[in-house]
Amino acid sequence: MNEFEKIILTLYDKVRIIEDIGEVADYIPELSNVNPLNFGVDLTLNTGENFGVGDYTTKFSIQSISKVLSLSLAYSILGESIWNRLGVEPSGTAYNSLIQLETDKGIPRNPFINAGAIVITDVLLSNLENPKIDFLNFVRNLSGENNINYSEKIAVSEKSVGYRNVALCNFIKSFGNIKNDPNKVLDFYFDICSLEMSCIELSKTFMFLANNGINPHNQQQVLTLSQSKRINALMQTCGFYDESGEFAFKVGLPGKSGVGGGIVAVHPGQYVITVWSPKLNKKGNSFKGMKFLEEFTTQSKLSIF
Amino acid sequence: MNEFEKIILTLYDKVRIIEDIGEVADYIPELSNVNPLNFGVDLTLNTGENFGVGDYTTKFSIQSISKVLSLSLAYSILGESIWNRLGVEPSGTAYNSLIQLETDKGIPRNPFINAGAIVITDVLLSNLENPKIDFLNFVRNLSGENNINYSEKIAVSEKSVGYRNVALCNFIKSFGNIKNDPNKVLDFYFDICSLEMSCIELSKTFMFLANNGINPHNQQQVLTLSQSKRINALMQTCGFYDESGEFAFKVGLPGKSGVGGGIVAVHPGQYVITVWSPKLNKKGNSFKGMKFLEEFTTQSKLSIF
Amino acid sequence: MNEFEKIILTLYDKVRIIEDIGEVADYIPELSNVNPLNFGVDLTLNTGENFGVGDYTTKFSIQSISKVLSLSLAYSILGESIWNRLGVEPSGTAYNSLIQLETDKGIPRNPFINAGAIVITDVLLSNLENPKIDFLNFVRNLSGENNINYSEKIAVSEKSVGYRNVALCNFIKSFGNIKNDPNKVLDFYFDICSLEMSCIELSKTFMFLANNGINPHNQQQVLTLSQSKRINALMQTCGFYDESGEFAFKVGLPGKSGVGGGIVAVHPGQYVITVWSPKLNKKGNSFKGMKFLEEFTTQSKLSIF
Amino acid sequence: MNEFEKIILTLYDKVRIIEDIGEVADYIPELSNVNPLNFGVDLTLNTGENFGVGDYTTKFSIQSISKVLSLSLAYSILGESIWNRLGVEPSGTAYNSLIQLETDKGIPRNPFINAGAIVITDVLLSNLENPKIDFLNFVRNLSGENNINYSEKIAVSEKSVGYRNVALCNFIKSFGNIKNDPNKVLDFYFDICSLEMSCIELSKTFMFLANNGINPHNQQQVLTLSQSKRINALMQTCGFYDESGEFAFKVGLPGKSGVGGGIVAVHPGQYVITVWSPKLNKKGNSFKGMKFLEEFTTQSKLSIF
Repeated sequence: MNEFEKIILTLYDKVRIIEDIGEVADYIPELSNVNPLNFGVDLTLNTGENFGVGDYTTKFSIQSISKVLSLSLAYSILGESIWNRLGVEPSGTAYNSLIQLETDKGIPRNPFINAGAIVITDVLLSNLENPKIDFLNFVRNLSGENNINYSEKIAVSEKSVGYRNVALCNFIKSFGNIKNDPNKVLDFYFDICSLEMSCIELSKTFMFLANNGINPHNQQQVLTLSQSKRINALMQTCGFYDESGEFAFKVGLPGKSGVGGGIVAVHPGQYVITVWSPKLNKKGNSFKGMKFLEEFTTQSKLSIF
Repeated sequence: MNEFEKIILTLYDKVRIIEDIGEVADYIPELSNVNPLNFGVDLTLNTGENFGVGDYTTKFSIQSISKVLSLSLAYSILGESIWNRLGVEPSGTAYNSLIQLETDKGIPRNPFINAGAIVITDVLLSNLENPKIDFLNFVRNLSGENNINYSEKIAVSEKSVGYRNVALCNFIKSFGNIKNDPNKVLDFYFDICSLEMSCIELSKTFMFLANNGINPHNQQQVLTLSQSKRINALMQTCGFYDESGEFAFKVGLPGKSGVGGGIVAVHPGQYVITVWSPKLNKKGNSFKGMKFLEEFTTQSKLSIF
Repeated sequence: MNEFEKIILTLYDKVRIIEDIGEVADYIPELSNVNPLNFGVDLTLNTGENFGVGDYTTKFSIQSISKVLSLSLAYSILGESIWNRLGVEPSGTAYNSLIQLETDKGIPRNPFINAGAIVITDVLLSNLENPKIDFLNFVRNLSGENNINYSEKIAVSEKSVGYRNVALCNFIKSFGNIKNDPNKVLDFYFDICSLEMSCIELSKTFMFLANNGINPHNQQQVLTLSQSKRINALMQTCGFYDESGEFAFKVGLPGKSGVGGGIVAVHPGQYVITVWSPKLNKKGNSFKGMKFLEEFTTQSKLSIF
Repeated sequence: MNEFEKIILTLYDKVRIIEDIGEVADYIPELSNVNPLNFGVDLTLNTGENFGVGDYTTKFSIQSISKVLSLSLAYSILGESIWNRLGVEPSGTAYNSLIQLETDKGIPRNPFINAGAIVITDVLLSNLENPKIDFLNFVRNLSGENNINYSEKIAVSEKSVGYRNVALCNFIKSFGNIKNDPNKVLDFYFDICSLEMSCIELSKTFMFLANNGINPHNQQQVLTLSQSKRINALMQTCGFYDESGEFAFKVGLPGKSGVGGGIVAVHPGQYVITVWSPKLNKKGNSFKGMKFLEEFTTQSKLSIF
């Protein structure tokens, strides 16, 4: 840990002061209210040790990072049959593109583009008794924290301008790959995206993916070994929209980003690291988050490759 | 090794007798002459130990597997500036697609689709004194084998029907991203694809990627640590055309396939495994090769994720 | 007229008995209830003479034929500034494709694909006092018939399954090219599509386009000469989705089809001809309607080319 | 004629002095040597009367205008079976796009994009005894002029940089829709494009399309009535690449443009008008040519719509 701590502290100071040429996400009114100077990093090791710096205990909107959590819950319920509804290939296009959906007749390329996450939301809606509560409990259980909540403000704000997602959901429905009422699916989808968590909470929550599918807080088997590895593989190939190749290339860890500026990266068998900085690069991923993680795996000489 | 040996032997017998619903590549006349029943597996560990079964010493046309080797040579010469000429993102389309080239104005998505490998060939042509000889020596040096050669028969056969590649090369040239005469680039490209190697030779050749960029046969630093990791990351996200996600998902190792039916997969720090079976699935990857590797990482419980 | 009458009667008998390999539109439940054997033809000359045969007085759902009427009303109100919101180029894709919208950032290619007609609906909503009533009056005035009405049954039926159009409208809204609430735009859009008219009513309604923009029933100038010619040009290049070229090629008249099986074609300065037969070919145009019109212009040796 | 003369003279003076924001085609070195101030107009009536102004007797490179002539010859030889090899739909994309070819498996959308004209060239190569001489004689015969020739300079210049066309031809060949050696097809294609003609020669040459397929100089039936109408329809829907809709919309006549700056437009039964001005707009069509023709049909109140 001492070695990691040193690297993180040095890098934090270095990256904090580089000019941030990103932009805070402004397509959701409520998201643009965040302080752009927030910057937090948290590292949690498989040994249980934890180290954080900066705003690592401040909650923020996790947005698309939640796509890994909703997929995990759906995958644990349905198993491999879930892949009848969507694919596991990188899309080669932006996160909210409709183009490939038309070619592929409503089958999203993967669960981490919006189209795929909407299908997963539809799956959860069909398979959970109290979808909104059950999903929240799933996340709280993973994290070992009970004060994790949806942000109604964010959810309402997104609903008010989420035309692109309304388009995606209805487009998929037109191909028959949404089973529930599109409005209900979208409501739940916006709820899931509105989860608020801190860096440290995210690190803890994702530990099961560094730990062969086992929740380290209570030793529960959340996913099978194989499922856990497969979600990591998916994060590696598809976790950063059309910058996924770049992230694999430069950082070399499975990970997932959100437009709230958070990035979670997993080193299977070793650790989870979470970075948060709200300004996004042109591909929609945290500008400083990407920089930090690139330098972190370079200096620690640890990547999965 | 004993553990690996057992798994490989059992799997070899199991996969050998499953019905092979693939097809031998027939778009190159010469390729279709191969015996479709050939089936070989070779595993070489970082410790130097080696274990092969079946036709693992029979030479075959490595085809696109050579794209990793030409990239490695070009990368070692030019360093990161090579990425001004092509990208590192999965393409989301078939290996010989021209569509994204038009959108991206002649910049191929990655070095493992034909368009990207053609640009790499152009780079080599501009930077090698005797391109055909120098490249062959590079490969022989990596493998520690001097009897590796181009197949003139295969190269001529490909030239005679390689209209799609002629189209790709001239299309890129029209955007200014090919510097040499397209006919010369294509000749060299077809030569590179025509290399013939056996499973054991391929395993040995790729060991530098399991070994932090160092050639284990002579301790030469072929690529830097960072470059070696980056090529592995590229193989992970782009090594299997539009089945790259599937391979990461099911096998969980960086790898590269060729239409000759070969697949090489790398477990950094541990081993290289090569499988050869000529019949291809619909995505152009060896049907039995994919099956074998999927079961191999499942049973050995070793993948990078 | 006698010459035309003879051709129409002969062709009607000939086309009536050819095998109809089309299919009645079934994506809207209510549309599929139509009797597939209905077949009507009406010709109205600029001289005022009229000749009909078969089910030419039976009302049917005019569907996309209404797109010419909504465009005409919007064009008469806003003039050329309307083209800031959409283009005049053939789309090269199916009528309900979302692909080009993404490339063109929410600007539909032309007013006769669904995306374009939805934008026109939005324009009408912003510019009419009582949109639903005002539009109906516009159509009644053009036709000189007061018993033309929307079909609430059809509109409700379309709303219940119109996911693709919901997707289109929200997609365009996400680019800022819809000004009103998408739900209100869609309600009005489905109303407009639900208009029910007979062949003879359609011929009369479209006479202003054969008559330099002047309504022959009351000599009102509905559109300027130039606007009238331009709408005809648009019908010629874009009136039949991705079969527009084929229609120009084989029939040689500006025209517009609908999935209710109707086709209206205009010979400027001479006549309007309307054909109705519910079974559609694979491109969504009336199978017998296309056949009839092709033979009609061939035999009459009259096309605009 | 007097009325037409007056309009043409007035418009010529008006359009000559408007600022020309176009650019001379520079992708072919030899083309860029033209004097950008050249501006000629020629009108030939079906009655035989002719009126020209400005540089209407100066020869220029007709480039893509030749696509109508090669299609006419091929169509006259093969009849409707020609449409097994290519379509009649607008492409919705640029003249040299490869995208739709990939989707449509080597079947070009229409004969007026480069891909389609290359297929037509292949057809001629298979069906003419002395292709280069026979085609030239066909054009000379249509025009009644014997001093029409290919420009070897232009053909050589195009061959030296025609990578995009090499790509197109080989791409189509890869789908099996080119029967001859791609290099021979391309040589002949570049020859055809290199034809040099003046405005008056072009007007005379295209008279058969204003005259029901009959060459007015010798009363020969070059095409049947139906074929002649169909080529006009094709020019209307596809004659100006992705500006075809705009031309139909604003000018309202079938026509064809070339990157040499020429435009020929046909009013069936009435006249042919040819305009030449070398600077091109962004879509590759003569900037002043488009302006002139738009005003010409507006002021003469004569368009086919």
